[in-house]
Amino acid sequence: MNNFKESLDANQDRTDDQLGRSRVTDSDALEAYYSELDGQNTGAFWKVANNIEPWEPKALSEPVVWKNEELRKLVLKSIDLVSPEDAGRRVVYLKNPKRTEVSAACGWLFSGLQVMQPGERAGAHKHAASALRFIMEGKGAYTIVDGHKIDLGARDFVITPNGTWHEHGVAEDGETSMWQDGLDIPLTNVLESNFYAVHPDGYQTVDLPKNDSPLTYGAPGLRPELDKWDKPYSPLMKYSWDQSYEALLNYSKVTDGSPYDGVMMRYMNPQNGDDPMLTMGASLQLLRPSEHTKAHRHTGNIIYQVAKGSGYSIINGQRFEWKEKDIFCVPTWMWHEHVNTSSSDDACLFSFNDLPTIKKLGFYVEQGLVDNNGHQVVVA
Amino acid sequence: MNNFKESLDANQDRTDDQLGRSRVTDSDALEAYYSELDGQNTGAFWKVANNIEPWEPKALSEPVVWKNEELRKLVLKSIDLVSPEDAGRRVVYLKNPKRTEVSAACGWLFSGLQVMQPGERAGAHKHAASALRFIMEGKGAYTIVDGHKIDLGARDFVITPNGTWHEHGVAEDGETSMWQDGLDIPLTNVLESNFYAVHPDGYQTVDLPKNDSPLTYGAPGLRPELDKWDKPYSPLMKYSWDQSYEALLNYSKVTDGSPYDGVMMRYMNPQNGDDPMLTMGASLQLLRPSEHTKAHRHTGNIIYQVAKGSGYSIINGQRFEWKEKDIFCVPTWMWHEHVNTSSSDDACLFSFNDLPTIKKLGFYVEQGLVDNNGHQVVVA
Amino acid sequence: MNNFKESLDANQDRTDDQLGRSRVTDSDALEAYYSELDGQNTGAFWKVANNIEPWEPKALSEPVVWKNEELRKLVLKSIDLVSPEDAGRRVVYLKNPKRTEVSAACGWLFSGLQVMQPGERAGAHKHAASALRFIMEGKGAYTIVDGHKIDLGARDFVITPNGTWHEHGVAEDGETSMWQDGLDIPLTNVLESNFYAVHPDGYQTVDLPKNDSPLTYGAPGLRPELDKWDKPYSPLMKYSWDQSYEALLNYSKVTDGSPYDGVMMRYMNPQNGDDPMLTMGASLQLLRPSEHTKAHRHTGNIIYQVAKGSGYSIINGQRFEWKEKDIFCVPTWMWHEHVNTSSSDDACLFSFNDLPTIKKLGFYVEQGLVDNNGHQVVVA
Amino acid sequence: MNNFKESLDANQDRTDDQLGRSRVTDSDALEAYYSELDGQNTGAFWKVANNIEPWEPKALSEPVVWKNEELRKLVLKSIDLVSPEDAGRRVVYLKNPKRTEVSAACGWLFSGLQVMQPGERAGAHKHAASALRFIMEGKGAYTIVDGHKIDLGARDFVITPNGTWHEHGVAEDGETSMWQDGLDIPLTNVLESNFYAVHPDGYQTVDLPKNDSPLTYGAPGLRPELDKWDKPYSPLMKYSWDQSYEALLNYSKVTDGSPYDGVMMRYMNPQNGDDPMLTMGASLQLLRPSEHTKAHRHTGNIIYQVAKGSGYSIINGQRFEWKEKDIFCVPTWMWHEHVNTSSSDDACLFSFNDLPTIKKLGFYVEQGLVDNNGHQVVVA
Repeated sequence: MNNFKESLDANQDRTDDQLGRSRVTDSDALEAYYSELDGQNTGAFWKVANNIEPWEPKALSEPVVWKNEELRKLVLKSIDLVSPEDAGRRVVYLKNPKRTEVSAACGWLFSGLQVMQPGERAGAHKHAASALRFIMEGKGAYTIVDGHKIDLGARDFVITPNGTWHEHGVAEDGETSMWQDGLDIPLTNVLESNFYAVHPDGYQTVDLPKNDSPLTYGAPGLRPELDKWDKPYSPLMKYSWDQSYEALLNYSKVTDGSPYDGVMMRYMNPQNGDDPMLTMGASLQLLRPSEHTKAHRHTGNIIYQVAKGSGYSIINGQRFEWKEKDIFCVPTWMWHEHVNTSSSDDACLFSFNDLPTIKKLGFYVEQGLVDNNGHQVVVA
Repeated sequence: MNNFKESLDANQDRTDDQLGRSRVTDSDALEAYYSELDGQNTGAFWKVANNIEPWEPKALSEPVVWKNEELRKLVLKSIDLVSPEDAGRRVVYLKNPKRTEVSAACGWLFSGLQVMQPGERAGAHKHAASALRFIMEGKGAYTIVDGHKIDLGARDFVITPNGTWHEHGVAEDGETSMWQDGLDIPLTNVLESNFYAVHPDGYQTVDLPKNDSPLTYGAPGLRPELDKWDKPYSPLMKYSWDQSYEALLNYSKVTDGSPYDGVMMRYMNPQNGDDPMLTMGASLQLLRPSEHTKAHRHTGNIIYQVAKGSGYSIINGQRFEWKEKDIFCVPTWMWHEHVNTSSSDDACLFSFNDLPTIKKLGFYVEQGLVDNNGHQVVVA
Repeated sequence: MNNFKESLDANQDRTDDQLGRSRVTDSDALEAYYSELDGQNTGAFWKVANNIEPWEPKALSEPVVWKNEELRKLVLKSIDLVSPEDAGRRVVYLKNPKRTEVSAACGWLFSGLQVMQPGERAGAHKHAASALRFIMEGKGAYTIVDGHKIDLGARDFVITPNGTWHEHGVAEDGETSMWQDGLDIPLTNVLESNFYAVHPDGYQTVDLPKNDSPLTYGAPGLRPELDKWDKPYSPLMKYSWDQSYEALLNYSKVTDGSPYDGVMMRYMNPQNGDDPMLTMGASLQLLRPSEHTKAHRHTGNIIYQVAKGSGYSIINGQRFEWKEKDIFCVPTWMWHEHVNTSSSDDACLFSFNDLPTIKKLGFYVEQGLVDNNGHQVVVA
Repeated sequence: MNNFKESLDANQDRTDDQLGRSRVTDSDALEAYYSELDGQNTGAFWKVANNIEPWEPKALSEPVVWKNEELRKLVLKSIDLVSPEDAGRRVVYLKNPKRTEVSAACGWLFSGLQVMQPGERAGAHKHAASALRFIMEGKGAYTIVDGHKIDLGARDFVITPNGTWHEHGVAEDGETSMWQDGLDIPLTNVLESNFYAVHPDGYQTVDLPKNDSPLTYGAPGLRPELDKWDKPYSPLMKYSWDQSYEALLNYSKVTDGSPYDGVMMRYMNPQNGDDPMLTMGASLQLLRPSEHTKAHRHTGNIIYQVAKGSGYSIINGQRFEWKEKDIFCVPTWMWHEHVNTSSSDDACLFSFNDLPTIKKLGFYVEQGLVDNNGHQVVVA
């Protein structure tokens, strides 16, 4: 449902001096009128119309790449500086230079890197914001979501939905573990909807069998007969890397993939095919050796972590190099294309986004680049 | 689905000096670390955590009442100052004192009063923002939405969904007409999703029979057999006052109503029972003679127009008087209760809101006031 | 979703002597084998294949018209012969000559005419079969469905869904009342699913306000805010003739109608647009003066009652005359077209059908007649 | 939604001589009246009411077990007697003694055993009936469904939905292969909805990559980003035994299972969680060593194949022994409980059923046995 396809494709005349746009000339009489309006908590629409009704969206954020080489060192340093109990969560968050006032990495999405040592455990809490994690390294890490305890291994994808009690830790015999957090905290705040609560007992009690969520819901094409799941998020809370990467390889054998995204799959709630949580989605995509996708742009913000391989992306004409564990973002309505620079190995991008929010509200618009065989001209 | 009912009802301890909140004490080592983080587009989460994860939402807006007595005069004055063709739309918009930078009346909702004279007609355009109107006075006004021409009478409720071509006018033999516009322009902007296009021909051609939308879809419990409607908004684009008020009177005969809202009905898409548009909802409610509702609060912003009668509302302890055609707003998470001050006549409130947005994203939380028999103490 | 459109349109070769059909020639060896199979509760599929996999459906019923002139007299006669209490329900049912063993009027649909006198009341019961009624004459009749008491007037359409307690009666000061019942009793039996229970108290207690169902749910485009309806059938249990006929007249002003059915509307659950009950649907259609529709055929059985006017229908080449209150049926996959023989007045057909059953199971197939400008040749 | 729970649990008085049942005494006047009714294609409802409105369903079928020991030999014998091309399909079908006239194995379900030799291939056709298969033995078998070619291995579950072109075969270098077919042919016939077409070219062309369906859709919790699937059945057409059995073992680690069914999972459409096809469902259940389930009964018919292990089931008081590859059926509303007689090995039952049909129509009713600690008394 792209209601603006025709006008985008037609390269519409976008001067404001035409019927259908505001083109009122100022005058003394109008100025007097404006003052009068102002006194009554009102204003003249035609003074702001062209400004608040732009021809197309302008991104609030800028594209950024965060290099794991620097990031990892910084995050590890925090271990000696704060404890998880005192910090709430020991997280270094990613600040988009244009979004510092709302602590966002891109659009209204928050992201950070969390690190925990063997034996550490943070207190349980819940919030209206939804959270997801993509594990970067370590062993023995676990999360507990509403009493469901789940083991976390490298490159697993895990969810912590809106309103669920959650806490994380690493087993005594584990290894220092690090993961990327993704949350919609800025969105819940800008939509005036965030709530927070600390667990009355500090920590959750775990009565359910360990890993009951993936063991019950992680099967292809089968659902438990007794299932009474009625929550608005996925009962499958961990999507293991091994199964997910295998899925991508299988799919790559029988598809040409998307011109814009290579071989791409979306994490879903296995009970109904929806995104795992109401506000945020996540995907995994494979770029075949030497693949160079075409450029497109769409509403919605995306934050990528390189799960495998190396290459670069061109975002609104600017080139961003990346390799494994680097993180980068593509702000809304910016042209983007991806390149796997290896001629022998595939590259994999994990990403999460606000597309479920954008699509539910009817705001999704997409456009493919037609000129120059679909490729951007790289600036400087 | 109120995931925070327990903690709200429990009057949870909300000090930040507890497990589950950030309570890191500053130190020189930390300050040095913060500088280092800053240089890499990152920050320490524990420095912002308590701020961006509040215990509950704080409204961005303040409650305001706009009195028709002043407003009407101001709006009429615009007739001599600008033409609809030049203004785009001749609208005086409502500015919430705390939301002037985004031209919002409340939350991320825009509202304004539009006036048109007999024979006037504004050019056709479309945008990603959705619009609705509640007619205040006049005769002979009409709207054309994607080629469907619809007559507008006083207190009719009309929709102009996201992405539809639309234009308004008043017939040559009509009367000066005024209506309240409601749009989600600020929401589309903050979510980086607004698009705009002017109609290639300036105005739409109308080939369909006049009023085909209400004549086809405005019947209770019947749908056209040939119906192939697959748009994400209601095919019924006008909800007439006569039918709607009758519906409210009928319902009032057999219901006790809501303790918080009296006898309340929600406008819906008659094909599926959903809200008429994806982002905004609208309701009509009847307060019986002398009815004084109990207070509750919930996420989501509401803008009311008094369709009938007089009374007052108490919003977060402050009293706001209103009578017919006055407009007022209740910002998110503010306690509110309504009073019909007439002991003989009913009062009716038309309102529109962002609840479909809030609910689709899983952000709806509601709480009834328990103390003082459900009534607020009025401040000053 | 007509999966057989291509083969139907292509007038496929339908001889059984081709690849893809069973064409095994009998032999002594095979005969011996068949006996052996029979002894083990088995059989050779190829012996029955062509029979149980027909090229297209063959209707179990034949078309019939029941004339009100005869029917009404017969029904009235029952008043003196049995009481509603003894009869359970005082109903004369319609027997399709080819379906007498299952008491069906057409397909797996039951229909009958029920009559009650002022002051009469039948005991309350429920069953897994769903029921509907179309009122033919009288005043003061009422139904009570799960405690909701509803007044019934001529040509109102009323539902009594699967599993609801129900009972009917006529007020002391009313008039002898008659209505057509439609039920899926034969379907529930053939699908081995009928249950029956008598009300423990004989009759229901009515605590709810009279007519609360239509007063709450009978409004176009509005739903009660407090609505918690979660049943799989419509909360609107009466569709009044006045509103329905007005809806049809309104719609007729702005539509060309269907080539096969004239101006046709479907009764729906106003909460979600679905059919009022899970297994049966109902429609109202208007044939404009002198209208002669084109012929089509489809899976699913229909039983019509003439609500207004006179004319005839051609069903599989046979002509059936009808006038007000006559009842007739069109069995599955039979060609049918309708004619309004008045050049000045419209004709209206009420009908009910098993289409919701057929469509839910993916069995709906439709075909329009192409030859002879869409009209059947009438046989003798 | 069991609308009859109360009356079932209450052991309602089920004599017909009570208010709410028909209890009319015959008389000469009534007999004369009945004749008169008969002449007008009508009848007195009260004469048939108690018969067509039973207190509860009576199954059309009887329970049967088909022993693989006998069955396999019979099926293999068919190889020398008919070719797949001549037979259409070389299938020995299962005849329920009470359902021979409709060629049903249980209720309105058809089942048969199909055998094919290396190099054999049957012609392509389609029908409104849906089909499924459970592979029993062999190597190199394949099916082609609407151009999707899929390899079949032992104990894989495969679907061939309503209206899809399909054909089967065994590769030249494969082994003689045998599988159980399950179809709703009797249901499509009794609902007057079966259609049949032979493929215009005799056989389908396969342009798609082999096994594209399971490789694209067979991943847990991931869907292809490009997915545009809009058919009313599952795009995953093969559910492999290895993955399915592993799923069952995983689930068994974290669930107590159902008191009536042990550890049970349902095959589902991975895009939306629905049953794989509109009319029929299928399940896999694991009975732990020595597990003896409690008895329950419900509407809907089930046909089981023993996928693994041995034991017995008690169906309406009668004991039926089974071991691997045996097939047995449980007709609607019959009490049934299952026993794994091994104290060391698990037993697995594959089953298919008409429950999607029963549930879509609102006909599902279930009751657990309360007496005798939930166990039936075995008769004889």
